[in-house]
Amino acid sequence: MERYVAGIDIGGTTVKMAVFTLEGDMVDKWEIPTDKTGGGEHIIRDIGASMKKQLDSLGIPYEALQSAGVGAPGPVDVENGLLFEAVNLGWKDRYPLRDLVKDALQIPTAIDNDANCAALGEMWKGAGKGAGDLICITLGTGVGGGIIVNGDIVHGAKGAAGEIGHMTAVPEGGYLCNCGKTGCLETVASATGLVRMAMDNIKAWNGASFLKEKVEKAGVISAKDVFEAASMGDEPAASTIDQLALQLGLALANAGSILNPEKIVLGGGVSKAGDLVLSPVKQYFRKFAFKPVGESTEIVVAELENDAGVTGAAWLAVNKI
Amino acid sequence: MERYVAGIDIGGTTVKMAVFTLEGDMVDKWEIPTDKTGGGEHIIRDIGASMKKQLDSLGIPYEALQSAGVGAPGPVDVENGLLFEAVNLGWKDRYPLRDLVKDALQIPTAIDNDANCAALGEMWKGAGKGAGDLICITLGTGVGGGIIVNGDIVHGAKGAAGEIGHMTAVPEGGYLCNCGKTGCLETVASATGLVRMAMDNIKAWNGASFLKEKVEKAGVISAKDVFEAASMGDEPAASTIDQLALQLGLALANAGSILNPEKIVLGGGVSKAGDLVLSPVKQYFRKFAFKPVGESTEIVVAELENDAGVTGAAWLAVNKI
Repeated sequence: MERYVAGIDIGGTTVKMAVFTLEGDMVDKWEIPTDKTGGGEHIIRDIGASMKKQLDSLGIPYEALQSAGVGAPGPVDVENGLLFEAVNLGWKDRYPLRDLVKDALQIPTAIDNDANCAALGEMWKGAGKGAGDLICITLGTGVGGGIIVNGDIVHGAKGAAGEIGHMTAVPEGGYLCNCGKTGCLETVASATGLVRMAMDNIKAWNGASFLKEKVEKAGVISAKDVFEAASMGDEPAASTIDQLALQLGLALANAGSILNPEKIVLGGGVSKAGDLVLSPVKQYFRKFAFKPVGESTEIVVAELENDAGVTGAAWLAVNKI
Repeated sequence: MERYVAGIDIGGTTVKMAVFTLEGDMVDKWEIPTDKTGGGEHIIRDIGASMKKQLDSLGIPYEALQSAGVGAPGPVDVENGLLFEAVNLGWKDRYPLRDLVKDALQIPTAIDNDANCAALGEMWKGAGKGAGDLICITLGTGVGGGIIVNGDIVHGAKGAAGEIGHMTAVPEGGYLCNCGKTGCLETVASATGLVRMAMDNIKAWNGASFLKEKVEKAGVISAKDVFEAASMGDEPAASTIDQLALQLGLALANAGSILNPEKIVLGGGVSKAGDLVLSPVKQYFRKFAFKPVGESTEIVVAELENDAGVTGAAWLAVNKI
């Protein structure tokens, strides 16, 4: 009988689920809504029911599923299988996620946080394939990170390793971050941070600007608006991109000089702007990195997109049980 | 028969040598001058002869020496046992150090660079004892670093991991570094960098200052002079220490947010200034680090001093053969 593993990526809106072979080939993927009612008490029961139903419809006997991996939206105590908290799901202090999923699915289960799962996914089957040393960064609403050394995630003393988004990019006078600190990389390299910087640049700009007109008409702009305006040569938009690229290139160079990974993998919305962002980020990276690092560490774009989390969770199911 | 290992730390002036038990207890240590004549061709022969002579005088039969570890003053290809170069010893491109020492001593040998050996020494027997995740930094003429994750050194793609001294601390307008880049941490956190910053601060200072008087009389000052003046309340000296502490605290905070090690171990001359430097470094570290990192990563002073290198080399002899 062929054996399979499950990869599960729990998010605030949907739970992404997938079945993989032991070699990491995806057999099927699907998602269910995240039911946050009752303090999130139905989420795990829903996962269990959906897994059984889906395997049934795939014609895979349940006994063929040998283990599961779960990516969780918050800091995790990997050893004890606990989620410290996941405020947006309603799960409280030290939620015993691993054992609850294990009971619901009746198979051995391993957990890690979602950013680490995404990094493992890119290492196993994506842009970092074949690399044992990797830094993965997701540039979305926030900036998440996962660090891989010798083919495994670095968790650190309190599970707080990989928090590249909370490197201090602006030591004095930076924007306030959600973490309580000011000047975090996340405040200048996330989509949210990009829009805020653009709004400030527009305020200080007296010349012609499509982006300024858009703000005056619509009241709000998105990161995509900034990218579009910059690619049309809009000056405050272009200088906003340059600010982001400088700060991101500098932070990656400093992370690179510490770890000299084979690859730095950039994912999330901001990385989808393509060469408009990537090309200056690479220039600043080479400018600020220790020379042998600038020459040997490659910056690449993530490949798995929304599948990174379930793929990395499946890697846990194969390698961490 | 009790078995032993050798730890050897090759420097530009002396070669430090020591014999250890397999548990890492030092039996004896000594040093010989580094003979740089003839492109450094005598160094390894001297090591071999000295080892035999010393074991003889200790009454340890040569057969009891089971392996050796060597710390080398330059970037190393650990896998192939090559030293890329060690300009100050006269050793050229891809010097086959491991096999040459192995032939001279007639025992299995492992090598790594000296900063990594110092980090392994502190992990095994020093300030990092018992910690599996560690950042070690030596603040001397330059700034060297070694990163330990899961109880082993991180080498990175081209052996350039751990180069914390070449993190870019001053993105614009920084001092030129020996590595060819500007604004490296080494230019503001080494003893050399401290003196240069102090000289600049003195030039711009119009008030009373012991340090300024000293420069005017003697023409030159040392890092020790700056520490002494600062501890007596000299203003340009105190503001120089604050600049160093800010840059070092910021770099350690950013390295900490990436790796969340149990401990950050500071060694070398600058760390010997005690609380004058340590106390503001810790303050800036907590200010700039991601909060869970600031709470869980501890900054401590190295304990092994000049023995760190041979101790880490001996660790290689026990664990990497």
